[in-house]
Amino acid sequence: MAQEKKLVESITSRDVDFAQWYTDVVKKAELTGYTSVKGCMVFKPAGYAIWENIRNELDRRFKETGVENVYLPMFIPESLLNKEKDHVEGFAPEVAWVTYGGLTELQERMCVRPTSETLFCDLYAKDIHSYRDLPKIYNQWCSVVRWEKTTRPFLRSREFLWQEGHTAHATAEEAEARTEQMLNVYADFLEDYLAIPVVRGRKTDKEKFAGAEATYTIEALMHDGKALQSGTSHNFGDGFARAFGIQFADKDNQLKYVHQTSWGMTTRLIGAIIMVHGDDSGLVLPPRVAPTQCVVIPIRQKAEGVMEKADEINAALKAAGIRSKVDDTDRSPGWKFADQEMRGFPMRIEVGPKDIEKGECVLVRRDTREKYQVKIEHVAEEAAKLLETIQKDMFERAKAFRDSHISTAVTYDEFRDAADNKPGFIRAAWCGETACEDQIKADTTCTSRCMAFGDDEAPEGAVCVCCGKPAKKLVYWGKAY
Amino acid sequence: MAQEKKLVESITSRDVDFAQWYTDVVKKAELTGYTSVKGCMVFKPAGYAIWENIRNELDRRFKETGVENVYLPMFIPESLLNKEKDHVEGFAPEVAWVTYGGLTELQERMCVRPTSETLFCDLYAKDIHSYRDLPKIYNQWCSVVRWEKTTRPFLRSREFLWQEGHTAHATAEEAEARTEQMLNVYADFLEDYLAIPVVRGRKTDKEKFAGAEATYTIEALMHDGKALQSGTSHNFGDGFARAFGIQFADKDNQLKYVHQTSWGMTTRLIGAIIMVHGDDSGLVLPPRVAPTQCVVIPIRQKAEGVMEKADEINAALKAAGIRSKVDDTDRSPGWKFADQEMRGFPMRIEVGPKDIEKGECVLVRRDTREKYQVKIEHVAEEAAKLLETIQKDMFERAKAFRDSHISTAVTYDEFRDAADNKPGFIRAAWCGETACEDQIKADTTCTSRCMAFGDDEAPEGAVCVCCGKPAKKLVYWGKAY
Repeated sequence: MAQEKKLVESITSRDVDFAQWYTDVVKKAELTGYTSVKGCMVFKPAGYAIWENIRNELDRRFKETGVENVYLPMFIPESLLNKEKDHVEGFAPEVAWVTYGGLTELQERMCVRPTSETLFCDLYAKDIHSYRDLPKIYNQWCSVVRWEKTTRPFLRSREFLWQEGHTAHATAEEAEARTEQMLNVYADFLEDYLAIPVVRGRKTDKEKFAGAEATYTIEALMHDGKALQSGTSHNFGDGFARAFGIQFADKDNQLKYVHQTSWGMTTRLIGAIIMVHGDDSGLVLPPRVAPTQCVVIPIRQKAEGVMEKADEINAALKAAGIRSKVDDTDRSPGWKFADQEMRGFPMRIEVGPKDIEKGECVLVRRDTREKYQVKIEHVAEEAAKLLETIQKDMFERAKAFRDSHISTAVTYDEFRDAADNKPGFIRAAWCGETACEDQIKADTTCTSRCMAFGDDEAPEGAVCVCCGKPAKKLVYWGKAY
Repeated sequence: MAQEKKLVESITSRDVDFAQWYTDVVKKAELTGYTSVKGCMVFKPAGYAIWENIRNELDRRFKETGVENVYLPMFIPESLLNKEKDHVEGFAPEVAWVTYGGLTELQERMCVRPTSETLFCDLYAKDIHSYRDLPKIYNQWCSVVRWEKTTRPFLRSREFLWQEGHTAHATAEEAEARTEQMLNVYADFLEDYLAIPVVRGRKTDKEKFAGAEATYTIEALMHDGKALQSGTSHNFGDGFARAFGIQFADKDNQLKYVHQTSWGMTTRLIGAIIMVHGDDSGLVLPPRVAPTQCVVIPIRQKAEGVMEKADEINAALKAAGIRSKVDDTDRSPGWKFADQEMRGFPMRIEVGPKDIEKGECVLVRRDTREKYQVKIEHVAEEAAKLLETIQKDMFERAKAFRDSHISTAVTYDEFRDAADNKPGFIRAAWCGETACEDQIKADTTCTSRCMAFGDDEAPEGAVCVCCGKPAKKLVYWGKAY
């Protein structure tokens, strides 16, 4: 067991140094790697396979709501980026500029897309003429670039993978309905598929997207008590349509501007999975998103019949649709157990000569380490049931953790105390002024995460936690990634 | 039928002006669009959905051979690109250069990847230490940029989508086997899935990839008699490994260089589908790759029971796994027929009151326009069978066309006559000198497409078709996209 010990010791405890623990897990589970490109990361097979599952499942859910995929150029001419004032101010300082094509200096420089609102508007201005051309419910899967100074794997890097949906509608109501619909698609996806509970809500003006009328967000709580903005959906009203001249002849023969939305989710979701579910032994993947759901580990694999039985179990699991494999390397069982835990496979099955004699094998959960002695003849159905249980339990545990990390502050002293001593969300009333958000951030590093749907009303007579003036809204505050 | 006529008339006949016909089909079938980004194209939903099917099927086939997907940065620092001499000479003249990040000029400029050999080498140099780390069978799906002067949708654009596989092996034999294996994956994919017959072979030194020891290719013949290079697989030997210092300790404790391969396929395959299968009514999609395989068109759709029956047929097809939809717009049936033909859906089903009385509907093939009266109760199985027949017939027709467009030239006069008057491949013997390839290209615009596997031996005593010296190889020549 010396190797196993060493393998686990190489991960920093998450309660000792959460940031280092995160870095260790990302590295030891071989999710990412470095190259000579500063600020950019490599998605290694184990990391990219998680993204593939996220993409495939989210794409399936998108298409159920009528989304069509497209692909637009990665370059945006400077004049196009400049068309919408708030938008360009938000993004121009952090884009990468292409100035040469081959040996020739470009007449107009182009940025690598930080997001594609302007390109979609350019396309929509060409393609939308009549109400018959509406709605457009387009999405693209691609990478985008933002020239960040400090970077961390999955959470912040100069290039990251994401999807960006961009829609155009005949009416403001339809655009608003789509904005909310997609936020709910995101929220349900995180809760059902990634076992991550979220707070759904609306951003304050200070925190909303550059060019948006309203931004909705889902906020998840990491194990260290920090919030992670995990998906956003924006209603642009007709602001972009006016800047880009996107008009259509309506049924009443009037020329009208379209109403637009956009919504995106990124590879930082992988960071969320790590920081919500991981533990001191490494990654813990929820079964639904796990590229490998089960690894079968033979005990005394050279003993007669053991490898055959391991293969038989593996085949039964695969036939039942479980993503399973056998670890038949020449390592010790102890090393393999530690390796499975490090990589976060939700379940392992141990099978050795003594088990085989009894016609049994042992199922071990990654999340709780509980063991179950199971008849080999029933292994596929038992494994399928256990994976469902693990998925459900992981969500419930994350939700209980999240719920126990929401505090309420009425006075500014209470707020500062919570910010210092109670990791998690702080519910506190707010006057609606950006100045108070700035003050709170300066004093505590907390930012307004959202005004939660169904929980955004300031109590009767409440005052702003910062300035003491009458409160307009109840806000979820937090330190954020 | 006036509308129908107009719809079809808007496509130029492919025998009158093939290039214009191509442009018309791409536009009318709404596969691509333009934006303000010069030289780049938009993949619209109908075009992107074809690429999604190509990607998903090819990815499935890759994974069966042990391929793992990764994602590497889109930027390559100039010093990294410069590391392998032949490679940088091949690509540096046509890359886009990023020189600013936000407001800051970069200390070292970076290109947007034209291909990622250098990045994979950089990663492999860090990750490969022992024979235990081999082989690496990585692939990525991404876009790449080459600063082309003249562009055409799918065939040549400044940014295009592709996959690039990059592998590292312990031995030269293993690398060679992988190079050939992936070429065969490509060839089988084109033939089985896209119904496009290919010639498999090896490139001459003049035509091989910058930095490769050997390049294998699949060459397809378009309807105008021009060749389209449709996929390539390269064996690098240990050239890149020496330039990047990728060494491993082998089982014999010797430090050795790895042997590498790369292989890629791009969105130009969509151009191949159009140019092999399309006709004067528009696109013709092989059933396996078609995003929509069947459209059900109600005749007299306001008559009682017609829409219900159309929906019932559609539901039966979907239940049988056929990608089907109903065209329930307020257009005339004739307009819908023309629209289905334009978009290349492999099959339509017509159903009206008279058919319903007999319990029947009409299946119409896109490729041959043949009609089949079919009992509605058997529609799903009949449609499934017909789609298989269409797939098979489309391949056989394309193969017969290709085979009838291969001529053989012994003398240079014969070669020039074939180049002028016989569209297609020209089989001709060659001395092995680049000078003759240059001469032939200057005189006829033909290039050596490949030395075909199993058909690359110059006949006994044959001489080079160009210079008359003893021939070393039999080559397939052609005008190419």
